[in-house]
Amino acid sequence: MDVVNVFDYERLAAAKLAPSAWDYYQSGADDEVTLGANRAAFARIWLRPRFMRDVGQIEMATTVLGTPVSMPILVAPTALHGLAHPDGECATAPAVGAEGTLMIVSDSASRCMEDIAAVATGPLWYQLYAADRETTEAHVRRATEAGYRAIVLTVDAPRWGRKERALRSDFDQPPQVIYGNYASTETKRAIMPLTWEVFDWLRTLTPVPFLLKGILTAEDAELAVAHGAAGIVVSNHGGRQLDSAIPSIVALPEIVAAVGDRCAVYMDGGIRRGTDVLKALALGAQAVLVGRPILWGLAAAGPAGVQSVLALLRDEFAQALALAGCATLADITPALLRMGF
Amino acid sequence: MDVVNVFDYERLAAAKLAPSAWDYYQSGADDEVTLGANRAAFARIWLRPRFMRDVGQIEMATTVLGTPVSMPILVAPTALHGLAHPDGECATAPAVGAEGTLMIVSDSASRCMEDIAAVATGPLWYQLYAADRETTEAHVRRATEAGYRAIVLTVDAPRWGRKERALRSDFDQPPQVIYGNYASTETKRAIMPLTWEVFDWLRTLTPVPFLLKGILTAEDAELAVAHGAAGIVVSNHGGRQLDSAIPSIVALPEIVAAVGDRCAVYMDGGIRRGTDVLKALALGAQAVLVGRPILWGLAAAGPAGVQSVLALLRDEFAQALALAGCATLADITPALLRMGF
Amino acid sequence: MDVVNVFDYERLAAAKLAPSAWDYYQSGADDEVTLGANRAAFARIWLRPRFMRDVGQIEMATTVLGTPVSMPILVAPTALHGLAHPDGECATAPAVGAEGTLMIVSDSASRCMEDIAAVATGPLWYQLYAADRETTEAHVRRATEAGYRAIVLTVDAPRWGRKERALRSDFDQPPQVIYGNYASTETKRAIMPLTWEVFDWLRTLTPVPFLLKGILTAEDAELAVAHGAAGIVVSNHGGRQLDSAIPSIVALPEIVAAVGDRCAVYMDGGIRRGTDVLKALALGAQAVLVGRPILWGLAAAGPAGVQSVLALLRDEFAQALALAGCATLADITPALLRMGF
Amino acid sequence: MDVVNVFDYERLAAAKLAPSAWDYYQSGADDEVTLGANRAAFARIWLRPRFMRDVGQIEMATTVLGTPVSMPILVAPTALHGLAHPDGECATAPAVGAEGTLMIVSDSASRCMEDIAAVATGPLWYQLYAADRETTEAHVRRATEAGYRAIVLTVDAPRWGRKERALRSDFDQPPQVIYGNYASTETKRAIMPLTWEVFDWLRTLTPVPFLLKGILTAEDAELAVAHGAAGIVVSNHGGRQLDSAIPSIVALPEIVAAVGDRCAVYMDGGIRRGTDVLKALALGAQAVLVGRPILWGLAAAGPAGVQSVLALLRDEFAQALALAGCATLADITPALLRMGF
Repeated sequence: MDVVNVFDYERLAAAKLAPSAWDYYQSGADDEVTLGANRAAFARIWLRPRFMRDVGQIEMATTVLGTPVSMPILVAPTALHGLAHPDGECATAPAVGAEGTLMIVSDSASRCMEDIAAVATGPLWYQLYAADRETTEAHVRRATEAGYRAIVLTVDAPRWGRKERALRSDFDQPPQVIYGNYASTETKRAIMPLTWEVFDWLRTLTPVPFLLKGILTAEDAELAVAHGAAGIVVSNHGGRQLDSAIPSIVALPEIVAAVGDRCAVYMDGGIRRGTDVLKALALGAQAVLVGRPILWGLAAAGPAGVQSVLALLRDEFAQALALAGCATLADITPALLRMGF
Repeated sequence: MDVVNVFDYERLAAAKLAPSAWDYYQSGADDEVTLGANRAAFARIWLRPRFMRDVGQIEMATTVLGTPVSMPILVAPTALHGLAHPDGECATAPAVGAEGTLMIVSDSASRCMEDIAAVATGPLWYQLYAADRETTEAHVRRATEAGYRAIVLTVDAPRWGRKERALRSDFDQPPQVIYGNYASTETKRAIMPLTWEVFDWLRTLTPVPFLLKGILTAEDAELAVAHGAAGIVVSNHGGRQLDSAIPSIVALPEIVAAVGDRCAVYMDGGIRRGTDVLKALALGAQAVLVGRPILWGLAAAGPAGVQSVLALLRDEFAQALALAGCATLADITPALLRMGF
Repeated sequence: MDVVNVFDYERLAAAKLAPSAWDYYQSGADDEVTLGANRAAFARIWLRPRFMRDVGQIEMATTVLGTPVSMPILVAPTALHGLAHPDGECATAPAVGAEGTLMIVSDSASRCMEDIAAVATGPLWYQLYAADRETTEAHVRRATEAGYRAIVLTVDAPRWGRKERALRSDFDQPPQVIYGNYASTETKRAIMPLTWEVFDWLRTLTPVPFLLKGILTAEDAELAVAHGAAGIVVSNHGGRQLDSAIPSIVALPEIVAAVGDRCAVYMDGGIRRGTDVLKALALGAQAVLVGRPILWGLAAAGPAGVQSVLALLRDEFAQALALAGCATLADITPALLRMGF
Repeated sequence: MDVVNVFDYERLAAAKLAPSAWDYYQSGADDEVTLGANRAAFARIWLRPRFMRDVGQIEMATTVLGTPVSMPILVAPTALHGLAHPDGECATAPAVGAEGTLMIVSDSASRCMEDIAAVATGPLWYQLYAADRETTEAHVRRATEAGYRAIVLTVDAPRWGRKERALRSDFDQPPQVIYGNYASTETKRAIMPLTWEVFDWLRTLTPVPFLLKGILTAEDAELAVAHGAAGIVVSNHGGRQLDSAIPSIVALPEIVAAVGDRCAVYMDGGIRRGTDVLKALALGAQAVLVGRPILWGLAAAGPAGVQSVLALLRDEFAQALALAGCATLADITPALLRMGF
């Protein structure tokens, strides 16, 4: 058996991608402390499985901001799928839809959001960066127009993180891989200072709900709720922004405690196994986002690879639920966990 | 000196077994986090030995559910001994009896329970999986008939764990190695949802006592007592079911605290040294079960290897008792331990 | 891209320096436990970044004992720059000034303090060892005369630490590299017992303020304040004196708590990244000192290397501030941190 | 510089000794968990040095049970010096005396206690094992007669630990290396159960004071005091008896707290550096014992090697005292330490 888990796609992608594209995808900021810790933190959380429950039928369908999805595993926004596949996000999106879940399209996609929406077969959210004011406003309006059901505003990138591994391998965007949502690379580079006032203004531009992605503290989570965010994505940008930022799964509980049921809480960072999903949900996340594994699947085997990655995670999550005694997501509670040992 | 401890049998077995059989025996689920942690957790428990006590005579004979055994080290149920020896469990059972201890025969044995009982020279318990209703009932009745003194119902396998190492080496059961208790592989594959109601029903089928194997929480231990279990085996199935399940030795104390003397508590998972046995008993287990080392002994040297493994563990346990100042099992108390440092 | 961080200068310096000079610079005392722990301790401190703040303009200029500096990153005193560059500290000082920050000139400099002051383009402090009474007094008076704005008295060297790595490579000072402030190596070797009385006397010799470098406990910090120290440098001498001395960043909080705003607190030991600076300031340091990286830059590329190292650290610190939501140093608070996990 | 610390003698001894002798000296019991932990535990204890104290003159002479020694570093009893040097303990003893400290002669010495006493130039204690009753009594009387100033009764060896490394290398005592205190190897092998009653009886045989070596718990320390022990040696026999016994330095504080000033407390296990000695004394030991390093010195360079090892440790301890701000042993307090981080 050649492919038994998502790490196999990592291996296959490494062999297929151009080295500089590989480094661009894989790298974290600086010493990659947070990148490693995102993953290592899961290994310190033990599961306390319950037994003698009827788990013959596992039900993991749920909704995210009212949108039904087949499982609480969503596709995180990641940049430039064009490095992994000639059709870029237009290859990814239908594959995600085929698995019944939601894709958060990156503002830094290599295809424009309208093209992606046109081929998508499942629900889409649009991840937004703060570019210059006009561009940002245009992106919000275009995303609304194109049917994206929510805007996921990334808050953790007032500057770009320094991905040293990528710098060393001289990552140079191939000419045919462009930022599909931007008129030019120059426009892409401009960053408007993002503040709560900007967020208040952005919310006036569209009726679709906003999520804030990158929140890592209870303090900011409180502010997010106060400013009308419909959801929070606890994230450190896959370890690509502030190195030694707290691992997402470690930050999650204080944010869940802070917001209660006042807004939805999702998380990303280091999800590679079904048991990781279970742990995140037991700590209060309503769903998780998966980033790099989707790129691995896309690079290794195109849309079929994306589907396979999602299917592997779904199967593993079903397995984890069954073996932990949970027939439905409602059976997941904090008592499933024991920290450290 | 070639063989000084059970790890030597591990090495010898690795050289003797077919690679795919080796992988099947050794593997744990997924990333084998729990497999490794079962063992690593023992290294964090320090012994506080007592001295100036007469330990010239060590007494370790005890009883398990009323059955006398030469030591509090039992043989855990493990599948398909036929991979290690042509006579399978019929080679193992007499060797275990010769060492004066008890064997828990696996429902997945390669020989049928009646044949094993016929050659056994010591007490036997029967480990039961929930197959389809008729098969399960038949197994309980057959085990009772064949003289098995208890039924050890495995609760942690509503699905089979994914042993990726075995999947990669394409474990394929050799045709001559069959599931001896089952009419066919198809029957073997059916799993009846196991619930407390099923357990209540199973108990009506036989006068022999039931133990529940795989319990990892105080909550389930409470339920086990409430539903009439005579004993609990704290276990994560040797790390082969839910990966990142809590290590057995870490779960043990909360279960001992929960059940008090209302039922017997045993444990398995990572027992490789006499000091491991001492630690488990100091944390409240009444006996431990040893799994893979028995297979190593059987593969390396047949029944003599099984006896040798058990003799090594007995000698090491006697040594540990003596050096810790315990002449009898009654001298073992929680004060012998100090956690972490 | 060849140089992306200060570790690249470490690599380049290793290739350029004479092996015994390299060992002399790099070595710590004994087993180098403290040397390693200085660095490892930072990896256990997580950042809790804040977002949606206007960090378009980062302001990191500050003052140290009233002297303006471009950033809270100062140059630690390190010995014998002549091993790294023919002009020794006279190469380093102008480069430090060009980056707008302050250099603490080592009493063990290979050039005399007057020559260094003559070429310096930024503020200087003089690091003082207790030699014999006359020499020490002369150094204080000469430093005052030469315009050094503070005296940094090293308290942690009543004896020289045993740098075994350097001993093994038979570090032998090349004849052209001398202790520029001393008449002879003999004078350099004499050490006057340093006590609080000696400190009281030293303060009478000059109007310039004194800092005490090497303090690692709240108790000594209290005494430092009581005896009129204007500042403390929390330091274990880069792990070169007492091995297994507490890492500087671990000692810092108790000292900050003890002195409050009664004197300035700086720290050195293991600062290699902008995020390290941020962590030290969040724990209460008003600035940090950087030692070995300056030597790496000097050895690898002369004054331009020194500037490059300082520029790298400034850029990284600006990046860390921005990504953590701090536009100014005043925005740095203990709430930015979470210890361990 | 070839030899800078005691680990250099370890390296030199490894090259000089017969492999089986090397394994015999170096090995610990079973998995050598305690052997390693004895050492690793020191690395988790941080020093909080104090400064600005006059440490120009370091005074480390002290007394042990009234006997003056040049430093609180004694020589632990270790067996069969004849494996390392043709003169065995008769080579070691004068070297120890030349360094002004005390040697605890092993009951398992390769030379008889009278011969060793005859050549010794410093104070001696006699380490006693419980052999058969007559032999044991004879040893006590002979040791008293020969002028040994105390009897150090080893309590942790009701059985011999299993040193697997030595078993594997088939350690076979060379015919010329004998147990000098025993009439025959048979006599040596007999072990009398050692109890508090035996201890009470032993005390009646001699006016010299008794120490108990191997105590690892406050409970046994209390009993030791109650039964008239003049001192305790906190020890796990260099990791050679009960594997996973608590590291000596970790056990030390509870024993110091239990006995207060009612009896002397010494410790051994993992002392390799002057800072280790300082840590042990800060935790309440009045002196430490050094075992294997003495054998390394003896094997590498004969009596001169023994002296060199002791001189290295003395110099390192003086260095540690000076750099921690302690001019005398009375300046050592628990406040010098900070555990973990």
